[in-house]
Amino acid sequence: MTRDRSAELICVGTELLLGEILNSNAQFLATELAQLGIPHYYQTVVGDNVQRLQQVVAIAAQRSSLLIFTGGLGPTPDDLTTAALADFFGVPLVERSEVVADLTEKYARRNRPMSPSNLKQALLPQGADLLTNRMGTAPGIIWQPTPELTILTFPGVPREMQTMWQEVAVPYLQEQGWATAPIHSRILRFWGISEAGLAENVAHLLALPNPTVAPYAGNGEVRLRLSTQASSAAEAQACIAPIEQQIRQITGIDCFGADDDTLASVVGQYLLTAQQTLSVAESCTGGGLGHLLTTAAGSSAYFRGGVISYDNAVKIELLGVSPADLETQGAVSDAVAQQMAAGVRSRLKTDWGVSITGIAGPGGGTDQKPVGLVYIGIATPDGRVLSRPFLLNDRQGRDWVRWLSMCTALDWLRRELHTTSLPKSLA
Amino acid sequence: MTRDRSAELICVGTELLLGEILNSNAQFLATELAQLGIPHYYQTVVGDNVQRLQQVVAIAAQRSSLLIFTGGLGPTPDDLTTAALADFFGVPLVERSEVVADLTEKYARRNRPMSPSNLKQALLPQGADLLTNRMGTAPGIIWQPTPELTILTFPGVPREMQTMWQEVAVPYLQEQGWATAPIHSRILRFWGISEAGLAENVAHLLALPNPTVAPYAGNGEVRLRLSTQASSAAEAQACIAPIEQQIRQITGIDCFGADDDTLASVVGQYLLTAQQTLSVAESCTGGGLGHLLTTAAGSSAYFRGGVISYDNAVKIELLGVSPADLETQGAVSDAVAQQMAAGVRSRLKTDWGVSITGIAGPGGGTDQKPVGLVYIGIATPDGRVLSRPFLLNDRQGRDWVRWLSMCTALDWLRRELHTTSLPKSLA
Repeated sequence: MTRDRSAELICVGTELLLGEILNSNAQFLATELAQLGIPHYYQTVVGDNVQRLQQVVAIAAQRSSLLIFTGGLGPTPDDLTTAALADFFGVPLVERSEVVADLTEKYARRNRPMSPSNLKQALLPQGADLLTNRMGTAPGIIWQPTPELTILTFPGVPREMQTMWQEVAVPYLQEQGWATAPIHSRILRFWGISEAGLAENVAHLLALPNPTVAPYAGNGEVRLRLSTQASSAAEAQACIAPIEQQIRQITGIDCFGADDDTLASVVGQYLLTAQQTLSVAESCTGGGLGHLLTTAAGSSAYFRGGVISYDNAVKIELLGVSPADLETQGAVSDAVAQQMAAGVRSRLKTDWGVSITGIAGPGGGTDQKPVGLVYIGIATPDGRVLSRPFLLNDRQGRDWVRWLSMCTALDWLRRELHTTSLPKSLA
Repeated sequence: MTRDRSAELICVGTELLLGEILNSNAQFLATELAQLGIPHYYQTVVGDNVQRLQQVVAIAAQRSSLLIFTGGLGPTPDDLTTAALADFFGVPLVERSEVVADLTEKYARRNRPMSPSNLKQALLPQGADLLTNRMGTAPGIIWQPTPELTILTFPGVPREMQTMWQEVAVPYLQEQGWATAPIHSRILRFWGISEAGLAENVAHLLALPNPTVAPYAGNGEVRLRLSTQASSAAEAQACIAPIEQQIRQITGIDCFGADDDTLASVVGQYLLTAQQTLSVAESCTGGGLGHLLTTAAGSSAYFRGGVISYDNAVKIELLGVSPADLETQGAVSDAVAQQMAAGVRSRLKTDWGVSITGIAGPGGGTDQKPVGLVYIGIATPDGRVLSRPFLLNDRQGRDWVRWLSMCTALDWLRRELHTTSLPKSLA
């Protein structure tokens, strides 16, 4: 076996071998390595077992020059990555005072006692550099046990691993010359069109060599990823921008944003621009729409609040929904969706009011009103009150219907905001 | 290296190395192997490259006796698993007439022309049995290239792989005596104790050979997994139950549930049992607590709804919070948390009212009231109104503070429900 200048992922954890968790860390790191242009030919998963872990290290050290470990950095006895590595390379573990100080400070700040076993996390191989963990207690290491081999270790908790990767490991790898011509990607995001329909509309672009254009679907939205290898963001932008423009012309309003945009963040941008406010009235989603809208910091500039009217009495008393309409039309109806939207707009004195009332299931459906039937209402700044039924896919269960309900409401609101703000932007 | 009677997963596909897809096949197969009681110590991912794949096979064949491959069975040039295996073991590929007939029939049924490249899928190593694929075109193989080694191959498409696994591979493995006593696991779930603290409290149990007891942390909660190999659920229960009881005695109320329980579902169970109702008043969480509480179908039996009082005006007008207290104490204070909880309980006529008001960040923090400071209020059925400040970990960002806020509110409510329901259960 010849050792390339390439990376190898080694994910440590018996929970992976038992199928208890999905190895999302491997996907994250694989994507990141591709974006940095660092070749990567193998991934290995091994359990919390010193001998087998050391066998894996022996094999990986022969064929790869950058070994990236996730998992096994915690305080409990089955967390053994650091000790197994030190032992394999014949280097002693030493207690690092800066880690002890960091652990002490983190526990003190949370008013929680530090257990003696936490000090295990301060034992690192002699000569290893610290890969600091701002988010949690377990630090990783950056270590060259031999001149030809670099080791990075991360905790298995995805959020901690990702932050450490982005804040510490990426700058280190760039500085050390690991990153070559990186892959730059731009993600265009769509709602209201199927993956197959989108792929047909842009079929002539899917065969492009540069940038490559690839469709994906997930979480109910469809995405196109435009990728190119380029040595600078400007070079990538020059390659990608003309194709992005073509796609946006073809797809129009179905394209709701790019990269980190979400339906909620895009709605927020429209409201901020128009200096308008929003309130919500939620039945089957139980507050989830409000929660999504307040994910963005600064949402208090346009989001005032809402009413979770799970029970009909709350619809009547807090939103002014007609008891007679509830009786004759049912809670899942145009009439009730409209009165909820108008009611919350009026009670909370906002420009817009949005309502959701539906049958999330699994029970409660009838022939006339099956599970997945959701009415969405929108009360507009000029006093119109709209409502529409949507029959959402219920094959993936209750929470999926609720998720699609929230996204569908945001998407419809986005389209209304787009229409009403058009005159201003064209003016 | 000694070869155990154990399985090893080898997932083939450059798309895995580029991070384009999540390796859900590995999780599926790992879970299945655990349920069959087939030990499994390694998983390897390798790209569409003959040399590297054969290196991986050489390593795996030395340490495992059942090699399970996914991916690389399709008709395109980069699908090379079958040919690489035949070549590695020095066995010729032969065209299998039953596969040609099956392919011809499947294409005819779909009214699609069969391309010559599809015939590649009919070339299998001499002596291999067919692992039929009812859902798609690519068949797998069941093959013993040497007396000590069994190879199973599956396409990478999860739906096809899963069907072939369940319909063909599982009966084969059972017949061949691979399935021994399966692993049964029970997960105990904790809130309000650190992973290290919990591990110390039950340290004497972490070394048990049977059941094994392993701690995990994730999403803010801590878990203990109790696992045992047993030929029946009853046998597993007999092994696990006494240890579970010991753990529950040691950890008391910190253990909030087991297996699929969540803080929200446990709160729901208490409320159902007590025939009591709940409403929520949410500021920084924007409706997320209501959304969590309504994840369970049937939550309308105890959850009435709530008010999302993101804006102070909503706190005043819909919840009756005192403008003077908002002015002097601030929205994030004991006084406001209490008035929100009491207000929503009274307005929605419920037994319990719970409120959350805090600083989720990233902006808005001060020295006195830093990001992560959250006040939770609880109005009880007997008219008491409680509140407490919590300083939550804000290093993982706004949504993490909001998540911890909701879980902390549910956990405190759970403890109050436990206390108030004690006399009944002791009666």
